[in-house]
This record gives sequence, C-alpha cells and structure tokens, in this order.
Amino acid sequence: MEATGIIVEYNPFHNGHQHHATSAKKLTDADVIIAVMSGNFLQRGEPAFVDKWARTKMALASGVDIVIELPYTFATAHAPLFATGAIQLLDAIQCKAFCFGSEDGTIEPFTKSIQIIQQAGESYDFAIKEAVSKGLSYPKALNEAYKDALNRTTEPDLAADLSKPNNILGFHYMDASNAIQSEMKAFTIPRIVADYHDEAIVGNQIASATGIRKSFFESDTLGTVEGFIPEKTRDVLIEWRKQRQNFGSWSHFYPLLRFTILREGPERLRLIADVKEGIENLLVRAAANNDTFAGFMSDVKSKRYTWTRIQRMLTHIFTGFTYDMRSSIGGTPAYLRLLGMTEIGKLYLNENKKRLKLPLLSKAAAFSNPSLQMDIHASDMYALGLGYDTNCSQIGNDYKIPPIIM
Amino acid sequence: MEATGIIVEYNPFHNGHQHHATSAKKLTDADVIIAVMSGNFLQRGEPAFVDKWARTKMALASGVDIVIELPYTFATAHAPLFATGAIQLLDAIQCKAFCFGSEDGTIEPFTKSIQIIQQAGESYDFAIKEAVSKGLSYPKALNEAYKDALNRTTEPDLAADLSKPNNILGFHYMDASNAIQSEMKAFTIPRIVADYHDEAIVGNQIASATGIRKSFFESDTLGTVEGFIPEKTRDVLIEWRKQRQNFGSWSHFYPLLRFTILREGPERLRLIADVKEGIENLLVRAAANNDTFAGFMSDVKSKRYTWTRIQRMLTHIFTGFTYDMRSSIGGTPAYLRLLGMTEIGKLYLNENKKRLKLPLLSKAAAFSNPSLQMDIHASDMYALGLGYDTNCSQIGNDYKIPPIIM
Repeated sequence: MEATGIIVEYNPFHNGHQHHATSAKKLTDADVIIAVMSGNFLQRGEPAFVDKWARTKMALASGVDIVIELPYTFATAHAPLFATGAIQLLDAIQCKAFCFGSEDGTIEPFTKSIQIIQQAGESYDFAIKEAVSKGLSYPKALNEAYKDALNRTTEPDLAADLSKPNNILGFHYMDASNAIQSEMKAFTIPRIVADYHDEAIVGNQIASATGIRKSFFESDTLGTVEGFIPEKTRDVLIEWRKQRQNFGSWSHFYPLLRFTILREGPERLRLIADVKEGIENLLVRAAANNDTFAGFMSDVKSKRYTWTRIQRMLTHIFTGFTYDMRSSIGGTPAYLRLLGMTEIGKLYLNENKKRLKLPLLSKAAAFSNPSLQMDIHASDMYALGLGYDTNCSQIGNDYKIPPIIM
Repeated sequence: MEATGIIVEYNPFHNGHQHHATSAKKLTDADVIIAVMSGNFLQRGEPAFVDKWARTKMALASGVDIVIELPYTFATAHAPLFATGAIQLLDAIQCKAFCFGSEDGTIEPFTKSIQIIQQAGESYDFAIKEAVSKGLSYPKALNEAYKDALNRTTEPDLAADLSKPNNILGFHYMDASNAIQSEMKAFTIPRIVADYHDEAIVGNQIASATGIRKSFFESDTLGTVEGFIPEKTRDVLIEWRKQRQNFGSWSHFYPLLRFTILREGPERLRLIADVKEGIENLLVRAAANNDTFAGFMSDVKSKRYTWTRIQRMLTHIFTGFTYDMRSSIGGTPAYLRLLGMTEIGKLYLNENKKRLKLPLLSKAAAFSNPSLQMDIHASDMYALGLGYDTNCSQIGNDYKIPPIIM
C-alpha cells in the first residue's frame, strides 16, 4: 500500500477539503491519504472552531484515512517551522508523496524555486543569517534571501509566485522536504476554494472555512452552509453545538485572555514565545482598555505587526507557552500522535509499523515527551477557554483519548 | 486633636464594627478614629465581598474618620506581617493609641505577654529562628517560642490566651508596636460579635460578617440582615448589587483561578508567594478535577495546610504575586494611601500633615512604588474576577480614584 500525505487544519472540513483529499489520492495514485492536522490551536494563531477530535471525525468520513496531530509547537508557528514539522511527520510515516493546494497549481514553478536556492547554496544561507541579524523575522529573512537568489537567475518568471499565501506554504513544504533529503515526491493541485478571507458564502459548492464559521456563528439553522460541507461535517457541527454550546474563537476566549495578559504584566509576558520588541506594553494597555477582542485587536494592530503574528503571540500567552518551553521541545517532531484512522488506514499502519521513523502513539498515555505534554496542556486550555469542561472529563485527560476508528 | 487607630477589614461593615469604632473612641478619649483597612483581598486570603471604596463609604458613615489602605503585601499576609504593616501605618499617621477587639477583653494579659517575651530577650528570638530552620512556618515558630518563654515564667496564667484568633492578632499588634518602640498606647475591648464562622444570623443586633455575606448571597431581600447593619451599609450593598450584580467570593472567581492554576502548571506556581513544599502539584490536580471552588478546596484541604494558608496561596496565584515581588516590596510600609475621610478626619490631617512619618497619598497617581503598583494591580484583578469592568473604567485606573470625602 502506498500513502500520500496532505497538511491540513480543517477548520472546519468542507467540500474544498474533500476535493483536495480525493484529488490528491487520484493524482498520486495512492491507496491511502494521510493528513497531518493542527490540534486545537491553528497556524494563524487562533483557537480551532471545534476541537481536533471533532475535526478528525469529519476528515475520516470524507476521504482521509489517517489523521496525525501536528504538535502545538509547529502548528502555531510561522510557515517555515510549520512546514518542517508537518513534512517530517509525513516522511516519518513513510508517505511516498505529498500534495498541497497552491495558487500556481502546477509543481514546476516550485521545483524551479528549490533549484534556485540549491544553486545559490551558501550565499542563500548567508543572506538569511544576515537578514535575521538585521532584525528581520525568520520568514521575512527567508523571503529576502529568496528574492536575492531569484534576481541572480536568468529565468525568474519560471519560479513560484511567493506573494500568494498557499504558494508560500507549498514552497516551505518543498524546502523542508529538500532539507531532510526526503524521498517523498511533491505534487500540487490548484486551489479552487474561495479566498481565505472571503466571508460570504459564494454561489458554488465550495466556500471558505471562514465563511462557513461566520455562517455558523450567526445563525441557528444550517441553511446557508449546508451545500458547502459534507454531511458528516454537518452532523458533527450540530452535535458539537448541542453538547458544547460554543464554538472556539478569540471573541469567546477573550475574558480569560484579557485576565491573563493583565495578570502577567509586561515583565512576565516577555518570557512568552514570540513576544518581543516591547509589544508586551502595548498588549497590556490594549487589554486594560478593551473588554472585547475586536477592540483589543484594533488597538494592537499596526503596520509593524501582522494580524497573524499578533494572534500567535496571543495563543502562546493563552497557553503559557514560553521561549524556554519552545527551546526544550526543539525543531524536530519526536512522535506520531494518531488521532484517528479508517479501516484502510489501519491496514496501512499494520503493514508499515516496523518502517515508521518515529514512535506511533495510539495510547499517548504511555509516552513522555515535553512536546506531547504541551499538546495535552493546549487541549486543557482550549477546553477551559470554550467552557465545556462542566463534568471535568476533559482537563488533563486528552492523553487518555484513544484514536477514532471509523 | 488626638487620634486612635483601629485595624479592620469591614467585610462588610456591620453593627459590631460600629460598636468597636465608637467604643474605641470613647475608651481612649479620642477626637478621631483612624482605620487601617485591607484593600480588595483580605487576611484570610479571600476577595472582599465589595471593594475597598464601597467599604470605605460604609466606615465613614458609621464612626470612622479616616480610612487608610493596608497594602496588599501586608493585608494578605500571616498575622505577624499583617500586624507589622498595620501598626506601622497607625504609628506613621501619629495615632496616640490603638484599640483592638479581643476575646480576653482587657489589656493586662497582653501587656504581660509582651513582658514575657521582653524578658526572654535573645532566647526568644533564637527559639523562633530555630523553629523556622526546622521547617515551621513563621507564625507557628513564633507560637512555639512564645510557649517556651511562657513555660519559664511563674505566672503563665496571667498572659493572654493565644489559642483564640483575636487574641493572637492583638498580641501581634502589641508585639509589632513594641518592635518599633512606638509611643502608641494599647487598648482592647471585648469582642461581642458572633464567632467569625457563625453563619446563622443570631438573635441580637450583632451578627458575624460571614453570616451577613451568606444572607446576601442567598436572598434577594435584605429582610434577615437589616437589623445587623447600619443604614449606610445597607444602601451601599443595595447600590453595589444594582451596579455590579455580583459580590466577591472565591466561588465567583473560581473559573479564572482554575484557568490560571492549570495554565501556570507546577513549575511556575512555585514562584508564587507562599506556594511551597510540593503543594503546587496538589493544586494543579485539584483544579483539573473540579469545576467548583468547594470541590477544589475539599481536594486540597488537609491537616498539613490550614484553610487560610491555602486561600492566601490562591490569592497570590490569582494576582500573580511572586516571592520576588514580595521581596522587592519589603516588610515596611512606604506610604499612607488615603481611601477616605470625614470633615473631622480632614481637619486632623491638615493639623498633622507635617508630622506624618510616611508620605500621605491622596493622589496615588503622583507616587511610584512597587507596593502601590501591587495594590493597583490587585484592584484590577479583583474587578476582572468580579466581571464588573464592562465599561473599562476600572482597569489600571485605581490610582486615579480620589479619596472619598463624607
């Protein structure tokens, strides 16, 4: 059996995601689709709409055979680290290929981009270091170095267009795969989903996850979104709303976030991962002056900090994730946490269990690791943020939850 | 004009407190009664029922002329440090006397107790140090050393009975006054209030503050408590309920406390003042397993830790008050924060302003000090715990609030 990997968030799972999974399977002629999926906090620095278990159910019902959790430290990081964690997991679980959605939609421009940085060699690495030492963030430094390398080539137009968000992620997947000399073959399919930020439900079968979330927040019926999500997604969301009442969002988490920012104060906030350059003072002032998340963000947002960068800080503040904790976890995944599998996925894992490059955790309880500890801790913080721990079954218990088998 | 000091919490102010203030004035033949009062967190390690401003109003209407805030670091400390802070403030504001309520009710046993430790001299201090080095808490070590000194006297029965809670506080007031060689004269009056823990409203004009709070939490009418509180207390409580909806209590603050304990985890909890000896692990477990404060406390409570000691830790966890912060503040008050005064109080302060031993802050905004910063911070945490900052007028603004003049 051969597996193809995809890297996902499913916030929530919709028809576009199903299209991605089934196209990836077809295009790569795979027997099994393996998704590496963010946990309860996402790459844009947000709590997930519903938790990782609910999202796993949606995925397994609609084209995905195995779901592996992308650990917190990668899932909430900038694109290069996010990509590194995800690609190393897909490589460890013996995928023959990985397939991402991109604006460019064909693999050649990405292959060209990788060639360009390979040709640039040491001068590329040097340019990155130099840009970082000038104070640029790592992703920006990478981008500068890449532009620099691109300018020295004769065919810059053949390279991927790295001004587009999904192209950027795709480039980092390929770069990460290249860095570990993975044997996985890279594929891409055109993204036909609505733009990430499109809030309106558009007039076809595929809408953005943002649009679907907004529609759920605003209405009690599912009328407007029904056509854009698989049946299982609908059932899981309806069940979630019945049991938990609330969906994950910063608006809902804000009272706890606000208390935490003000309790910590600037001095302690400086210890939190990604908090730097004095933004801690701005965060405290904004929290003091605003009792809504929207007001808070409009006080903090500036040209200097992107929305995503601020939200990632807030995620780390909320979960108490420090620079020290991030260092102690390091930049390489240490385990494959199995969130769920289909019967086919199970067959694949049985067939390959001796070839996996990292321990496969189906019972997380038996494994001790600082990164896993952080994943479990983040689940606790998510449950408290959402306020759904009324029977105390959630807190501290994520590590006991067995994989979903469907 | 001559002033007598009293040391109070007024949680809330009731007829017993009014009796204390008026008796103290009469007994000491004073022109002015000055109360040193805890802020928004109390000596038993609890959030106050209503905030310090509301309690100041109650006091000024019913026999108190000046209210000075006992800074957080003293107000939430064990009896010796609580007493030190309060007595030094009364001494600094030039009181001629101080007067406390006690079970013994006459000053002679207390004078005797002080004589006993004076006679024991260095051996008393040595016994304290020895007991602390054996692992006893400071209050327990003091108690051991005192018993030791007592056993060596010929008339141990003439000394104060330090098994009773108000006698213990009284003893520490006198000890603290003795330690700074204050010229203040000590007085005591018998406590005729119901026992601290009596929850029932008893059949006379004086009930315990605990009973009054319970009655307020449970009923919408004031029928049962009306006879036990001055009219102004009643008005302030009714107004408070109308404006803030909630009263301060750990039950109400528990969701934020629980989130904070679980977010911090054992390693960071160890940095918090008074958290030691591995109790941090117990706190985390209890928070994980309980979504009510009552359940949490029943898991944490043991013979090893008194209820009060646990609650003080919780207060410091809630406000983020670390060992480091306590050290940087130190054990001596640095200012007199004026919360309110009557016209007579105002006259007294005008007459004595040049003789005060510490700066009098009527505008706290103009003064920078780590202890004052902590008082303001504690007010923010209290407001967020209560959830009454819906118009963002509270957070960070306590230092701007001028004294109440009545």
